Amino acid sequence: MNRLADQWGSLLHKRRIPVVEFNRVSFVIGIMMLVLTVFMFPPAITDIIADNPDWQVFAASAFITGFIGLMLVMMSRGSWSQDVSLKEGFVLTVTSWIVLSAVAAIPFVFLGRGLSLVDAWFEAVSGLTTTGSTILTGLDELPPGILLWRSLIQWIGGIGIVVMALVMLPFLRVGGMQLFQTESSDRSDKFVPRARELMGLIALTYLALTAICAVSYRFAGMNAFDALNHAMTTVATSGFSTHDKSLGYFEDPAIHWVAIIFMIASSLPLVLYVKFVKTRSFDVWNDAQVRGFLKMVTFVVIGMTIWYAARPDITLTEAVTVVAFNVVSIISTTGYAVGDYTAWGSGAVGTFFVLMFLGGCTGSTTGGIKMFRLQVMLITARNYIKQLMSPNRIVVASYQGKQITADIATSVLAYLSVMFASVMLFTVALSFFDLDFITSLSGALTSLSNVGPALGSTIGPAGTFGSLPDGAKIILVIGMLLGRLEFFTVLVVFSRDFWR
Amino acid sequence: MNRLADQWGSLLHKRRIPVVEFNRVSFVIGIMMLVLTVFMFPPAITDIIADNPDWQVFAASAFITGFIGLMLVMMSRGSWSQDVSLKEGFVLTVTSWIVLSAVAAIPFVFLGRGLSLVDAWFEAVSGLTTTGSTILTGLDELPPGILLWRSLIQWIGGIGIVVMALVMLPFLRVGGMQLFQTESSDRSDKFVPRARELMGLIALTYLALTAICAVSYRFAGMNAFDALNHAMTTVATSGFSTHDKSLGYFEDPAIHWVAIIFMIASSLPLVLYVKFVKTRSFDVWNDAQVRGFLKMVTFVVIGMTIWYAARPDITLTEAVTVVAFNVVSIISTTGYAVGDYTAWGSGAVGTFFVLMFLGGCTGSTTGGIKMFRLQVMLITARNYIKQLMSPNRIVVASYQGKQITADIATSVLAYLSVMFASVMLFTVALSFFDLDFITSLSGALTSLSNVGPALGSTIGPAGTFGSLPDGAKIILVIGMLLGRLEFFTVLVVFSRDFWR
Repeated sequence: MNRLADQWGSLLHKRRIPVVEFNRVSFVIGIMMLVLTVFMFPPAITDIIADNPDWQVFAASAFITGFIGLMLVMMSRGSWSQDVSLKEGFVLTVTSWIVLSAVAAIPFVFLGRGLSLVDAWFEAVSGLTTTGSTILTGLDELPPGILLWRSLIQWIGGIGIVVMALVMLPFLRVGGMQLFQTESSDRSDKFVPRARELMGLIALTYLALTAICAVSYRFAGMNAFDALNHAMTTVATSGFSTHDKSLGYFEDPAIHWVAIIFMIASSLPLVLYVKFVKTRSFDVWNDAQVRGFLKMVTFVVIGMTIWYAARPDITLTEAVTVVAFNVVSIISTTGYAVGDYTAWGSGAVGTFFVLMFLGGCTGSTTGGIKMFRLQVMLITARNYIKQLMSPNRIVVASYQGKQITADIATSVLAYLSVMFASVMLFTVALSFFDLDFITSLSGALTSLSNVGPALGSTIGPAGTFGSLPDGAKIILVIGMLLGRLEFFTVLVVFSRDFWR
Repeated sequence: MNRLADQWGSLLHKRRIPVVEFNRVSFVIGIMMLVLTVFMFPPAITDIIADNPDWQVFAASAFITGFIGLMLVMMSRGSWSQDVSLKEGFVLTVTSWIVLSAVAAIPFVFLGRGLSLVDAWFEAVSGLTTTGSTILTGLDELPPGILLWRSLIQWIGGIGIVVMALVMLPFLRVGGMQLFQTESSDRSDKFVPRARELMGLIALTYLALTAICAVSYRFAGMNAFDALNHAMTTVATSGFSTHDKSLGYFEDPAIHWVAIIFMIASSLPLVLYVKFVKTRSFDVWNDAQVRGFLKMVTFVVIGMTIWYAARPDITLTEAVTVVAFNVVSIISTTGYAVGDYTAWGSGAVGTFFVLMFLGGCTGSTTGGIKMFRLQVMLITARNYIKQLMSPNRIVVASYQGKQITADIATSVLAYLSVMFASVMLFTVALSFFDLDFITSLSGALTSLSNVGPALGSTIGPAGTFGSLPDGAKIILVIGMLLGRLEFFTVLVVFSRDFWR
C-alpha cells in the first residue's frame, strides 16, 4: 500500500513540470479554438442566406468551440510567459493539430447524414492537414455551409502549416528556428526577416494568391461560390471540391488551366513571393528547389502526354490539359481529379503511384518527400559515385551553393528511413483490415504524403474513403497527422526520453 | 572532314587507357569462363547416366565456352599484371557478371523447349545472381542435366558473390577493400585475415554448409538428386527447385525445417563461420547484424503464426512450419515456396511485400537492403529524435561499438536513394508493358532485391515469369544485376566521369 503510494508520488513528481507546461499549451490552444470559432460564422451565414436549417449546425459548433476555447484561455491566462521551452513547442505543435482537428470535426458530427464520429474526425483531419481524402459522397446535394466549412478548414490548415512553422512558434519564443527545421528539414535557407513582419507578409501573400485564384476561376466560368471554395482548396494544395466529380465537373479547359497554374504557384515556397515583394527581384530560377520542381513537372507532363496522346480519340490539346492537370494535382499533393486517370492503363497507375511520393517545395503547403530532400538524395548518390571512382579526390556535396553537411545528410537519412518504415508499417496495418494490396499501399502513401486520392477501385480518384472499416480510417488519420508534422515532431513527443 | 578526324582521334586517345585495361579484364574473364566450362561436365555426365540425349547440350556448351575462354586467356595472357587499377576492378566486376550470365545461358538456348534468347538470359541471370525467378514450367519433366545446371549456376553465383567481394578483388590488388565496401557498404567489420587464406576458408565453409545441408535433406527424406540440388540452392539463398511446386512438393515438415535452418544459417555472414574455425569462439550473439536478423525473423514468424493459426483447419505446428518456411524464404531472399502464401489473405500480401525489402546479413549471399543498413537507418532515426529533443546534447550514433561516421551515413543515404529511385523507375517501366500494379511493383522489387517470386497472379509464388513480354524480362534482368552488384558498382562504370 505504502509502496503504491510512493510510486504514485514519484509519478506525480516526474509529471510536475509537464503539467505546468500543459497549462501554457492550453492557453495557446484556447486562442486557436477561438479563431476557429470565428471561422464557423461564414458557413452559418451562408446557410442562413440559402435558407437552410443547417446553419444551426454551425451555431451549435461555434457555441461549443467558443465556450471551451474561452474556458481554456481564462483558466490558463496567467501561465503564459515568454520562456516557453523547446519541449513545450513540440507538445504545442502536436496537441494543437489533434485538438483543432477534433474541433473542426464538430460540424460534421452535428450534420447527421450518417457520419460516425470516426468519419467526422477523418474528414476534419483530411481537411486541416490539406490532404483532401473524403468520406463524403453526394457533395453536389450538400448544403453550402458544410461545403464552405470543408474548404475553410483546408485553407486554415494550409496557412497554419506555413505560418506555424515559420512564424507562430518563434512568436511564442519557442526555440526559434529549431522547430521550423523539424517541420521542414530545410536548414539551407537563411532568409529570415523579423518574425512578426514575416507572419504578416506570408498571410498577405496567401490571401492575395487565394483572391487572384478565385477571380481567375470566376472569369474562367465558375460561379462565385465554386470559385471561392476551389480557390481556397487550390492555394492550400488540399483538394476538397464542391462536386463529387471534383474539377471534372467543369468541362471547360480554361478552368483546368487556372487550377494547374495556381497548384504550381502554391507548390513554390511562399517565402519566395515575400522575397519578391521585399526585394523586387523575382529570382525564381535561382532557387534550386523551384528549378527542380518546374523541371520535374515539365518532364513528367511531356512524357505522359506523348504516351497519352497516342490514343485515337483525343487531340493533343486535350491530352496536354488532362495530363498536366492530373500530374500537377498529384505532385503538388492537391488531389483534384479530372476523370479517372487510373483507367488510362497500367502505365498511368505506376506513374501516379511514384508521383504520390514527390511533393512540392519546402515552405509550401504541399506534402510528400519534397524537392529539397529529393535533391539532396540525388546529389548524395551522385557524389558517392564520384567518391567511389576516385577515393583520393575530395568531393564536396553542395546544394544551392552551400555545403551539404553531415548534419543535413543525417537528417535526410532519418526522414527517409522513417518515411519508408511508415509506408511499410501502414501498408501492413491496412492490409490486415482485408484491404487489397493496391488499396493498402496507396492508402498508406496518400495519407502519409497528404495527397488525397489513392489508387485502386475503392479509394482511387473515382472512389471515396467512406466504405473503409473504422480501424483503417483511424490508421489513415494517424498517417495524415504524422506526414503533415513531418514525422519527427510527433515522434519526439511520443518518445520515451521526452517524458523523463 | 579534318575536324571529324580530329574528334575521332581525340576519342581514340581518350579511350586508350581503357583499351589496355580491357585486355587485362578479358584475361580474368577468360579464366572464369574456363571454370564455368568445368562445371558443365557434371550436368553432361548426369544426362549420360540418365540415358538422356540432352548431354549433347552441355557438351556443345562446354566446347563453345571452353574455346572462347581459352582464346581470351591466350590473347591477353601477357597483359595481366599486378597493378590492376581501381577502375579496372569496377569494369571487371560488372563485365564478369554480364559475360558469365551470357555463358550460363548457352545450355538454356541449346535446350530447345521454346526458350527464346531473352528467356535463356533471364534464367541464367536469375541463376547467377541467386535471385531464383524462373521462366520455366514443367520442371518435374525436365532432364536431370539442366536441373543440375540451374542449381550449379546458383551455387557458383552464391560463392561468387561472397568470394569476389571479399577475396577475388583484393587478390587482383584492386584497391583493396574499397570494392568490398561497394558491394557491402559494411565498413564496420575489421576482421580481415590474409586474402588467399580467407578465400580458401570461405570456400571451404560454403562447401561444408552445402554438404551438411545435402545430407540433412537426404536424411529428412529427399532422394539424393533432390537433396544435392536443393542443398546448393538453399545455401546460396537462391531458390531454384527441381519441382514446379518448389519445396511444397515435399509434404514432410522435416524437409521444410531443414530448409528453414539452412536458409537462416546462410543468411549470416560466412566470415562468422571462418571466425569460429579460427578462434573457436562462436560469438554469434555479439554480432549486431546476426542479433538483429534473428530477432527480426523471430518477431515476424511469431506475429504471423498467431494470425495464421487462428483459422480452424490448421494445427499450431502446421502453422508455425508453413509460416516460418515462407517468411524465412522471403527474408533470406531465397524464394522457395510452400503453398501460395498470397492466398492467405490481404494481410499476408502486405507483409510479404515488406519482407521482400529486408534481406539478411552483409557478407552472406542474401540480397535486399540487408540488416546492416536497416540498423543504421534505425539508429540514425532514433538519434535524430534525441538530437531534436535536446539540441545541445552531443549524441554519438554508434553501431557495434563503433561510431557511425558521416561517411557511413552518407553511403547508406546514397544506397537508399538509389534503391528507392530504382524501385520507382522499374515499377513505372514495367507498368508501361501493361503489367498490373502489383505485378510491376513486386516484380521490380523482387529483381532488385534478388528474392525470386513476386506477388500477384502472374509472377507470384504460384506463377512463373515465362508469360511476361520480352521487354519486361530485359528490365528484370537489368534489375537483378543492379541489385546483385549493389547498384553502385554498375552506376560507377556507367557514369560519364568514369570514361573521361
